[in-house]
Amino acid sequence: MSPNLELNQVVDRLNAAGADILNLAFGESRLPLMESLAELLSAAAYQTTYGPVAGTQAVRDAAAGYFGRRRLPTDPERVIVAPGSKPLLMAVQHAVPGDCILPQPCWNSYAPQVRFSGKTPIRVPIARGHGGVPDPDVLRDAIRSARARGLDPRLMVLTLPDTPTGTVAPPEAVRAVCAIAEEEDLIVVSDEIYRDIIHDPGTELLSPAEIVPHRTVVTTGLSKSLALGGWRIGMARFPAGRRGERIRAGVLGVASELWSTLARPMQEVAGYVFGGPPDVRQRLEASARLHGAVARAMHSVMVGAGALCRPPTGAFYVYPDFEPMRTPLAALGVTDSRSLQRFLFDEYDIAVMAGHQLGDEVDALRFKASTSMLYGQTPDEQLSSLNSADPVNLPHIRRSLTRVEAAVADLRSRCLAGRAV
Amino acid sequence: MSPNLELNQVVDRLNAAGADILNLAFGESRLPLMESLAELLSAAAYQTTYGPVAGTQAVRDAAAGYFGRRRLPTDPERVIVAPGSKPLLMAVQHAVPGDCILPQPCWNSYAPQVRFSGKTPIRVPIARGHGGVPDPDVLRDAIRSARARGLDPRLMVLTLPDTPTGTVAPPEAVRAVCAIAEEEDLIVVSDEIYRDIIHDPGTELLSPAEIVPHRTVVTTGLSKSLALGGWRIGMARFPAGRRGERIRAGVLGVASELWSTLARPMQEVAGYVFGGPPDVRQRLEASARLHGAVARAMHSVMVGAGALCRPPTGAFYVYPDFEPMRTPLAALGVTDSRSLQRFLFDEYDIAVMAGHQLGDEVDALRFKASTSMLYGQTPDEQLSSLNSADPVNLPHIRRSLTRVEAAVADLRSRCLAGRAV
Repeated sequence: MSPNLELNQVVDRLNAAGADILNLAFGESRLPLMESLAELLSAAAYQTTYGPVAGTQAVRDAAAGYFGRRRLPTDPERVIVAPGSKPLLMAVQHAVPGDCILPQPCWNSYAPQVRFSGKTPIRVPIARGHGGVPDPDVLRDAIRSARARGLDPRLMVLTLPDTPTGTVAPPEAVRAVCAIAEEEDLIVVSDEIYRDIIHDPGTELLSPAEIVPHRTVVTTGLSKSLALGGWRIGMARFPAGRRGERIRAGVLGVASELWSTLARPMQEVAGYVFGGPPDVRQRLEASARLHGAVARAMHSVMVGAGALCRPPTGAFYVYPDFEPMRTPLAALGVTDSRSLQRFLFDEYDIAVMAGHQLGDEVDALRFKASTSMLYGQTPDEQLSSLNSADPVNLPHIRRSLTRVEAAVADLRSRCLAGRAV
Repeated sequence: MSPNLELNQVVDRLNAAGADILNLAFGESRLPLMESLAELLSAAAYQTTYGPVAGTQAVRDAAAGYFGRRRLPTDPERVIVAPGSKPLLMAVQHAVPGDCILPQPCWNSYAPQVRFSGKTPIRVPIARGHGGVPDPDVLRDAIRSARARGLDPRLMVLTLPDTPTGTVAPPEAVRAVCAIAEEEDLIVVSDEIYRDIIHDPGTELLSPAEIVPHRTVVTTGLSKSLALGGWRIGMARFPAGRRGERIRAGVLGVASELWSTLARPMQEVAGYVFGGPPDVRQRLEASARLHGAVARAMHSVMVGAGALCRPPTGAFYVYPDFEPMRTPLAALGVTDSRSLQRFLFDEYDIAVMAGHQLGDEVDALRFKASTSMLYGQTPDEQLSSLNSADPVNLPHIRRSLTRVEAAVADLRSRCLAGRAV
């Protein structure tokens, strides 16, 4: 089972049984439902027929508008909605032949999907400053070396903004990997599910679909930006042109055999949201501010404890690296991402995603910490988080941050003590 | 794209543009939403978190009760809910290695799913009297011959009641194929999505899960029985024991990487329905009566026109065979299921699913006609269909039946005229 969903279930079960585990392992945004969406779902209940596999004309028109407002002019015929972006990412793997390049580390479901479609994941390390795209300086060599091993790289997945690093790859990095995609004839999948969660509106996100539009599939959904993971709403935008049409038709074929269509009431919700009404825009802005503030605070905690960590600029994650403390950590029995994860869990009741679960090297001392579940237990707490000018100093958020700070401070002091011995 | 969904979209588009095509090609039940379910969906809107991949404890408890009331005592831990039974059927293909035996003809999505998982479909003809299970008299030889061709049959899909034939395989046939599954060590998938649509309550449905419980996965959903295709609610029940647990864990793993979970508001709906409250029971009874009455009427129409046709006993289909008219049909240019489908479409504006689209031999003169879209255009008409003691004589149903009757009568008379020449 996918490690993030599994860990989340384990933590939920332990907490239900009376434990007090701080869950930083799961990328769920815990924010309250917008009232307008609750009303829409009610009103849409009477939509009970299957309808078109790709989605109704109305939802595809709205989706086209959504992309258009993000500098990606889109023909509604090039959109497919689905129960989450996950099945769409899977379908692209089925529809595009050849092996698949993934950033290392990356979201944990890409690699299993590559394997389900009978292909091989080719992992290429990310650069030092950001994640979500393979380091352009090593990508070309990695492609050649994969070919030398008999693999056939034809597809490359990018994540913009990125999980697990919580960063937005800068335009020059995106341009560089797109240039290689063009030279090497790769189809690009740009997973932009965190696109509406950029902490500073000044941070530029350049989509591969703006650079190599004829070879880029964009996927996104509402699970993260509108905290609707449990509603399962995703969509994909396919390239124009003959090759794009072939991929779209292939994905539609897979869709028709695997899931039929997105539940019709959810299509109504998606149509409203993708239309970009004021209440949705306002919610997106408030959410991005909150995610940014808390992710930055968590980044400070990690850096304060002596870890290396890319400053977060998008999504709601940090990805610290405890390499500087490798020697003293070893004295505590912590030698890799697995033992680091276990140590945090056993000693401090803090759950994180270990780097190796994201395809990173197992001996690296890295983990992903999600900050999106710290916004409160009740809708009232969550709303106050959303509306606060200084959310990290709200008691319910501060408490969690302090707990993590105390844990990594303790870890650090035990390391220093060990070093003294 | 899957031919049933594709044809449905084409017909919808043509009809929207002013055509008047009678759509017998799509297995959608056109009946109104139950009020209680609309209210449940509204109330469940606030369920926005992911929750467990397999479904909440509440929905799995209810599902276990559903199966228990159908002579299949079930531990809730052995249930997984999903956005339709389609993704679950796909996941079983991923989770169980080896090639897959399918009845010929069968539902059109099984074979593509087998291929998506890198396996080969092995088609075994159904018996003369019913569909949904391979003819036990030829199954053993088919398995040996597949092995001789280098295939490795390890899985067999049965459909009870069956699409496309609209029949319930009798207990002795189910017992016979289950005995072979036991001998040949096959895992059985029993697709029981039409289980609650048995026309005569006296018709016995024996599930393979009652005969070979340790090797049978049962799938079902609400798309057909409660006319909720557009809500995408499905579930699967896995065998007890170590092998069953391995399959369940495998499917859960695929689920976690492909679709995460069934939308939470839909889980609430499913929990209510699987609990079997009086209004749901009453709706199921009324639906089964209606489906039976109209399917039997359609059967009479086909037999009256000179076709062979298994009498329908479940679901909402008939599967006529125009073999007795092969020679005169050839004079009209109709020589196989493809040209028969086209002839009905071109000459009479009637859309059906051709047999070859269901894996049947292409030169057979067979098609599937669905009767579930004839219940009316408005919720009022549909409700009157549901509540009528004699639905086939309601004007809006009679009109469609008469139209089909006139078409096949015309076809027959043109055949006879041709023969006279």
